[in-house]
Amino acid sequence: FPYDITGKGYGKDGIKLFHVNRDGPYHSIHEFDIKVHIKLSGNKEYTEGENSAIVDSDALRNLMCVLGKKHGIEGPEKFALMIIKETLEKYAHVVEISMNIETYPWQRIRQDKAKPDGSTENYEHNHAFVFAPTALRYCEVIMKRGDSKPTVISGFKGLRILKTTKSSFKHFIKDEYSTTPDINDRILSTIAEGAWEYASIENVDFKKDWETVRDTVAKTFGGDPVHGTTSTATQRTAYLSVKQVLDDLPHVAIMTLTLPNRHYNNFDTRPFQSLVPGENNEVYIPLDKPYGIVYAELSRKDLQGHN
Amino acid sequence: FPYDITGKGYGKDGIKLFHVNRDGPYHSIHEFDIKVHIKLSGNKEYTEGENSAIVDSDALRNLMCVLGKKHGIEGPEKFALMIIKETLEKYAHVVEISMNIETYPWQRIRQDKAKPDGSTENYEHNHAFVFAPTALRYCEVIMKRGDSKPTVISGFKGLRILKTTKSSFKHFIKDEYSTTPDINDRILSTIAEGAWEYASIENVDFKKDWETVRDTVAKTFGGDPVHGTTSTATQRTAYLSVKQVLDDLPHVAIMTLTLPNRHYNNFDTRPFQSLVPGENNEVYIPLDKPYGIVYAELSRKDLQGHN
Amino acid sequence: FPYDITGKGYGKDGIKLFHVNRDGPYHSIHEFDIKVHIKLSGNKEYTEGENSAIVDSDALRNLMCVLGKKHGIEGPEKFALMIIKETLEKYAHVVEISMNIETYPWQRIRQDKAKPDGSTENYEHNHAFVFAPTALRYCEVIMKRGDSKPTVISGFKGLRILKTTKSSFKHFIKDEYSTTPDINDRILSTIAEGAWEYASIENVDFKKDWETVRDTVAKTFGGDPVHGTTSTATQRTAYLSVKQVLDDLPHVAIMTLTLPNRHYNNFDTRPFQSLVPGENNEVYIPLDKPYGIVYAELSRKDLQGHN
Amino acid sequence: FPYDITGKGYGKDGIKLFHVNRDGPYHSIHEFDIKVHIKLSGNKEYTEGENSAIVDSDALRNLMCVLGKKHGIEGPEKFALMIIKETLEKYAHVVEISMNIETYPWQRIRQDKAKPDGSTENYEHNHAFVFAPTALRYCEVIMKRGDSKPTVISGFKGLRILKTTKSSFKHFIKDEYSTTPDINDRILSTIAEGAWEYASIENVDFKKDWETVRDTVAKTFGGDPVHGTTSTATQRTAYLSVKQVLDDLPHVAIMTLTLPNRHYNNFDTRPFQSLVPGENNEVYIPLDKPYGIVYAELSRKDLQGHN
Repeated sequence: FPYDITGKGYGKDGIKLFHVNRDGPYHSIHEFDIKVHIKLSGNKEYTEGENSAIVDSDALRNLMCVLGKKHGIEGPEKFALMIIKETLEKYAHVVEISMNIETYPWQRIRQDKAKPDGSTENYEHNHAFVFAPTALRYCEVIMKRGDSKPTVISGFKGLRILKTTKSSFKHFIKDEYSTTPDINDRILSTIAEGAWEYASIENVDFKKDWETVRDTVAKTFGGDPVHGTTSTATQRTAYLSVKQVLDDLPHVAIMTLTLPNRHYNNFDTRPFQSLVPGENNEVYIPLDKPYGIVYAELSRKDLQGHN
Repeated sequence: FPYDITGKGYGKDGIKLFHVNRDGPYHSIHEFDIKVHIKLSGNKEYTEGENSAIVDSDALRNLMCVLGKKHGIEGPEKFALMIIKETLEKYAHVVEISMNIETYPWQRIRQDKAKPDGSTENYEHNHAFVFAPTALRYCEVIMKRGDSKPTVISGFKGLRILKTTKSSFKHFIKDEYSTTPDINDRILSTIAEGAWEYASIENVDFKKDWETVRDTVAKTFGGDPVHGTTSTATQRTAYLSVKQVLDDLPHVAIMTLTLPNRHYNNFDTRPFQSLVPGENNEVYIPLDKPYGIVYAELSRKDLQGHN
Repeated sequence: FPYDITGKGYGKDGIKLFHVNRDGPYHSIHEFDIKVHIKLSGNKEYTEGENSAIVDSDALRNLMCVLGKKHGIEGPEKFALMIIKETLEKYAHVVEISMNIETYPWQRIRQDKAKPDGSTENYEHNHAFVFAPTALRYCEVIMKRGDSKPTVISGFKGLRILKTTKSSFKHFIKDEYSTTPDINDRILSTIAEGAWEYASIENVDFKKDWETVRDTVAKTFGGDPVHGTTSTATQRTAYLSVKQVLDDLPHVAIMTLTLPNRHYNNFDTRPFQSLVPGENNEVYIPLDKPYGIVYAELSRKDLQGHN
Repeated sequence: FPYDITGKGYGKDGIKLFHVNRDGPYHSIHEFDIKVHIKLSGNKEYTEGENSAIVDSDALRNLMCVLGKKHGIEGPEKFALMIIKETLEKYAHVVEISMNIETYPWQRIRQDKAKPDGSTENYEHNHAFVFAPTALRYCEVIMKRGDSKPTVISGFKGLRILKTTKSSFKHFIKDEYSTTPDINDRILSTIAEGAWEYASIENVDFKKDWETVRDTVAKTFGGDPVHGTTSTATQRTAYLSVKQVLDDLPHVAIMTLTLPNRHYNNFDTRPFQSLVPGENNEVYIPLDKPYGIVYAELSRKDLQGHN
């Protein structure tokens, strides 16, 4: 046979799963959108049309729902680890399994409420939630049979941030193709996404880490709340953000950060000098397309045995 | 000629406009996505291919940018009113103009920062912002030449909320087509959108009103943070929300609220009783499609001269 | 009570329905995405939390599936008319019902196949289909109890067309806000959507009419395949298209056509004259936003008793 | 320094480019949405905030437009190869460049036109086009400095196909998690995407190859137009499609095909037996989520020197 099967797999995407913990009046929830993919040891369902090794993808979904009910859900990474462990234990011919989980950004509704003494207090609601999609949290967990430990990657998408000063872009190459001049002070805006792989997952608080990374990226971008911080290029900002995460989280092995550069073009007031004389530092035209794209990945050097 | 022109208009959609006020280190921003449509007194560009009455839609966009730079931007409603007034004054043959403005939900980045005395304070950033799309704010403003005042409608979209108890749906019609039984306690989730028309716009704080409406809808849905509130049907919840807004905002004439009913189906554990015996009150399957849809519009009775 | 309920309704959106006719080896299919909304004679589910009049929206969906199975499906308009008739007959307190149906653009897969005599013929497949979304077909059908006949509107969305010549835009107003010069020959591109209401639906072949309208819009836009036709403005093109449809389909009462004007900006080669001297008539930058928008609605004058 | 830069790059995404060839009345067009990413030999713009090595991403876009005008555009693969060659030649410190180009599916408008002899002929329009997005064509071309040849991958997305019979799914594992029974005859529907890498690009007609692959996937799925072909599982169908492509195109080295399995659930008529007695083989409920996912990659064994 002249070909090798060099890639294969199957599973289920778009599995929606909602879990509520109703122990007492204070309810806690998780809503996930899950992809699960597995690889089997043989190929006969491909090459011979013989399905006897197939674990139905509906069964994989049922397994998730059943284990979610049985053991509860702590967060996406731990849920994925539980499902992966159970699947590898139960099905000996599954040689690899990966799960990708996006979490829905539900937050408790906050409300002011009068207290008996007449004052007002801000309460978190016991059982009502609002969708607050400032950034999407997701994870990707992969385990191959025989590996000593799973690969756990956490990430965020859609962190859209903007600053109105302290961003220059100067001294790049000027030649016959370049039309952009040096800029001393531009609007910088990005829709950041980042992902980091754990060197060790023992005793990790994945939720806290996620919040740390998100806040670090925003803080490195914006700088001090009063004085800001200067960005010389999106490359520089990406690099400093990733470096800061690795400095702060020693159990993280690798991090990648992608920063698109959403352009805000200065509105050209030259044709309108009789109406609005002088320079324009107020009105900009945000551009959806095209947009710059910059990414940086840093890896910790001293990783022993990390694959 | 056997036909009447019973509708016509033209304009520009998808106008992106960003404005920054840089008076001092504390910058303020607005980002809009704008539609502007106008109607002319004659039809000859349609019927005769004679374009001499056309105000180019690029000119409309330029006018916005120029006036935005000249006078600054206070918010979408006031900006629309300014543009509409100028357009009707400048172009005598424009008989109607409407503007639809969506605002981008930029919020200042908040950061903890050490104070000189060693304590920590939470600061709002002077010039860095984060996109927080919990609900989209928009407005629609329309003015016909000769009208005594413009029609101003404010609205929100995408307020996604969920509660895990205090929602029943019972005593509806049961017949040969119905398969859903009475439900005592279900998960209720909606992606609310609402719009309200002003009876009067004098001295209105549009931003504050918008926040009031958004909070009222969330509060009517969730109820008391500890005890919640019972919903007997989405219809009931929609009605009570609108009524509350009209009670609170006497200068609002009409409000419409649309509440889709995003279904969360109980995961059927009957096939898995050996694994997870008993009832399931933990795991639900969120359904994207289909979804229920309910809307209610209330109008104030005592509106004199309101069209 | 200080308010009137001036609008209300409920129903189900996003109902996916697939029907296959398997009489013989030649299968025929319909796939719909349906919205159904109804209004009841009373309001007590809103004002009192009393649900006894509610026809559950799941029941409405079941009714559709059951009738679809029983009577088959001829097309979206006729299916909507059947469901509407049944609903009004069965539920005496339903005072209005509307349905919006989008159809999925499945077409038979075509294949060349060798014939016994050695020649090749192009066959339509008996039971395999491909999604060909050149334009989306939809309809909106509304019936109020007591009306003599339903309102039937058919429409299309997403007909994206472009021509590379025979489009000018000249002699419009030039003033202090205009920056666009007269253009003799530009690229014209639009994503057309249109809708038409029937004066009479007796013996109408809705599918054939839909294809006629789609083809008329494309033909009026493009003109003769060799020589084309001149467009003096998008307004003119919209008007001529609608007029042609009303000329061709006497049982159509009203038609609206919306033509966004997707801009293709000439790439400015002035900074690159040493590399590419002379004018540029080859490279354009398509712009997603903003885009012009033009619409025209024509109504037949001699409509007796049409509401 | 405790970290390595293990990944980096930058460029421009969402570059829209339209090219028209107007030599004579028969115009030809290309519309692309382009991503271009490059890697530089050094890192100082990341580590030191020193930008002197940066080729501005606007300059990359200008280079594309200028070369597109100068040399014309034959297709996405050849355009990418031209841009990549020029960039590597001009900028000696660019060590890698990749381009991803999506093409817009413009087709000539076809029209029937009367001939002088009174008969009718179907013409392709000289300069008017319609968007026919049955499947999206794209390519990915990558070149590292020093490599003997570029990596060229062509692909398609969004080929949505469905068949109403000749699909079974049987004999898979049945255990405590499985709820799906064996199915003899189901509706099979997928939104196929595929990508193939060339072993050699000499004298390749990329457009013809793309059409061959698309047609092969549709043909393997649907089978004979009269009799069809039996699918025992999506795995089997994916495998046979890829195998057929490699059989037909000897200059293709590797191909991957991903076939989501869009579920069409039989509408359960058991509660409605009084209305529609017997089995239901007509009405199905299409499900958007979740959906199965299957992929297969085959590689030619005898590839000498292929990296």
